[in-house]
Amino acid sequence: MKAEIIAVGSELLLGQITNTNAKFISARLADIGIDVHYQTVVGDNPHRLKQTIEIANERADMIIFTGGLGPTKDDLTKETIANLLDTPLVSHDAALVSIEAYFTRTGRKMTENNKKQALVLHNSTVLENHHGMAPGMALEKSGRHYILLPGPPHEMQPMFEHEALPYLLRMLGKKEVIVSRILNFYGIGEADLEFRLQSIIEQQSNPTIAPLASADAVTLRLTAKAETREEAERLIVPVEAEIRAYVGEYLFGINDDTLSSKTAKLLHEQNLTIAAAESLTAGLFTSELASEPGISTALKGGVIVYDEKAKIEQLAIPASLLQQYGVVSAECATALAVHVKQKFKSSIGVGLTGVAGPGAHGGEEAGTVWIGLALPDEKVETYRLQLSGSRNTNRLRTARFALYYLIKYLQSKNAKM
Amino acid sequence: MKAEIIAVGSELLLGQITNTNAKFISARLADIGIDVHYQTVVGDNPHRLKQTIEIANERADMIIFTGGLGPTKDDLTKETIANLLDTPLVSHDAALVSIEAYFTRTGRKMTENNKKQALVLHNSTVLENHHGMAPGMALEKSGRHYILLPGPPHEMQPMFEHEALPYLLRMLGKKEVIVSRILNFYGIGEADLEFRLQSIIEQQSNPTIAPLASADAVTLRLTAKAETREEAERLIVPVEAEIRAYVGEYLFGINDDTLSSKTAKLLHEQNLTIAAAESLTAGLFTSELASEPGISTALKGGVIVYDEKAKIEQLAIPASLLQQYGVVSAECATALAVHVKQKFKSSIGVGLTGVAGPGAHGGEEAGTVWIGLALPDEKVETYRLQLSGSRNTNRLRTARFALYYLIKYLQSKNAKM
Repeated sequence: MKAEIIAVGSELLLGQITNTNAKFISARLADIGIDVHYQTVVGDNPHRLKQTIEIANERADMIIFTGGLGPTKDDLTKETIANLLDTPLVSHDAALVSIEAYFTRTGRKMTENNKKQALVLHNSTVLENHHGMAPGMALEKSGRHYILLPGPPHEMQPMFEHEALPYLLRMLGKKEVIVSRILNFYGIGEADLEFRLQSIIEQQSNPTIAPLASADAVTLRLTAKAETREEAERLIVPVEAEIRAYVGEYLFGINDDTLSSKTAKLLHEQNLTIAAAESLTAGLFTSELASEPGISTALKGGVIVYDEKAKIEQLAIPASLLQQYGVVSAECATALAVHVKQKFKSSIGVGLTGVAGPGAHGGEEAGTVWIGLALPDEKVETYRLQLSGSRNTNRLRTARFALYYLIKYLQSKNAKM
Repeated sequence: MKAEIIAVGSELLLGQITNTNAKFISARLADIGIDVHYQTVVGDNPHRLKQTIEIANERADMIIFTGGLGPTKDDLTKETIANLLDTPLVSHDAALVSIEAYFTRTGRKMTENNKKQALVLHNSTVLENHHGMAPGMALEKSGRHYILLPGPPHEMQPMFEHEALPYLLRMLGKKEVIVSRILNFYGIGEADLEFRLQSIIEQQSNPTIAPLASADAVTLRLTAKAETREEAERLIVPVEAEIRAYVGEYLFGINDDTLSSKTAKLLHEQNLTIAAAESLTAGLFTSELASEPGISTALKGGVIVYDEKAKIEQLAIPASLLQQYGVVSAECATALAVHVKQKFKSSIGVGLTGVAGPGAHGGEEAGTVWIGLALPDEKVETYRLQLSGSRNTNRLRTARFALYYLIKYLQSKNAKM
């Protein structure tokens, strides 16, 4: 099964938007064993669109379109396909009702144009759009498959996942269920993770193990296929266990877990409160944590002590300590954590100090960071990082490493409880 | 002049990366009046690449390739083109010297494979690669133009700007210089900005005025063409003045200026220091400001007073004030700004309070925000925002609006000086 993805829209050719739809669809098709041989972008021009489809008809078994399903005169995808395949467009009752309901609900007046959106290719399977008005379509004609999806990613992606993917699996004659489980890691590079798991990744075919690149986090996507969801989930269990045996110390969460959501969840579960004293991160750690709704019961607040004087005046850290050990030291990180914990009467205090860069500071080179965690049992843990990024990458990594160490502490506490 | 962009790389078809090169090149070609009619992606497969080029030969006057110039056996772009155009590949002395120097410098051993990267199409104009090893090429054959660029964006983009663009302008017979000037706005939506400037944008052809969408900021790109840089710059002046007359109050910076860099610059210029008390933003404002290198002379620090008790205990804000006006009030924002200014002995204090959401809080609905600025002359300005985004969009916009109001204040002060 060879597929071609055709994105329709002049705004793509003008360089106003990026064709993220092609990436999304290609990745999902790869999951189910459909090879994409071409991605094509063509403008809102019926002649060139027709030629593009004719070329795709020659070289693909399946053509997936995105875009051009809207109500304006520029939206020509289904009209051009209808014409080329000699298949009439017919009004789809359910789609029309849903469009009319939308206009009634928003108090706007429906125009004739909008009725156009309820037209679908005769004999096609309609793919419901839960995030917009234009329905999608799937049609088989002369042994070739045509899938029509809307252009806006927030409409296209859910339609693909919930409507097109099941259709494709049925079409492939696969009574398969696909279950994915995402393992989220921190503190280990992608290359290192792949190296340590190389033999497992290579041997494994069901579930497949796909490392995913994302900004500053490493994830593995385990995708299992089976006849039932339970069986697919059962296939994942031993593979996940094997992965945990190798690199479990870096695993902090599953699926949607982020460093901040996982930290918030563990703090809530254990009824703990937190406050932070931040130097180089200047509020970034606390702000990341505050991105979680409902954090107010756990987050007491914090102090941003960007310069040395602020550390002394705002947190009463002895000047002699800073003079003896320097501001970039385990001792300073400890003092920041302990003092902010006392100041905000929280169960946990976090102290972050270091050199963001670009230049050296306090006798330490850029990227040298100390993290202090003052814990509920009065113990203090300190961690040293030697980062090599730009100023703001170093600041972001410091905040995230602090969340990561916090999660590891809270998880170990969970294990003991 | 009709162009087609062909990106070569199986990783694109597998959905592992997004084709950002097509967007970048399309936008730059639009600037100089070259229409892109197709964007195509094909894998590292010589047969399909050959067919793709044959199709492009039929419908384009100019074909721009990205990717497939590397040293591995998968990299086939120039070999396939050489074959198809019956043009031999010849070793390019300067490229070979530069590749050898790279290996000597990094102490690595050069293999035969790497020599392949110094091969270029006979009679082509070599486009220098200052960020990688593979040179680019530009070739005219049978009245058709072929431009070969590397795939990695950090190599492709500078090569396009500094090597390909001048080549294209020469080729187009234009003795033109292109000068762009970017105007950065905040506090106004893209649609509103375009509406207010509609007649100017429509009437204007040199410079052209292109609104650019970017995350949460609105920019206009003025692009002038002339025979000299001075003349192009002179063309921009009256158009910029006209734009300023309409929407100048929202303009905060030029070209690379960001809200935080502009704030930092103005604080430094005026020898002012700053501290912030943040509630809903929880450190985001201070952290954005701290992203600027050298900010330590201006940034004293801050307090994150996420809950009501922290506002009272950490900043000595009277409980009676919070009881009378609520935490989401001009009075609370004022108190935060004034108290944090005193506490950190800074010239300016910033107070941020409001409801990030998702739910309502303190009797106010999500998105209600108060910003307080305690100024060097002891005056206090307050601003009310009614935002409608998600929790974290509201938090980010609050931090950015605070920077924007600060810039406006500092600029007005500059004007008075």
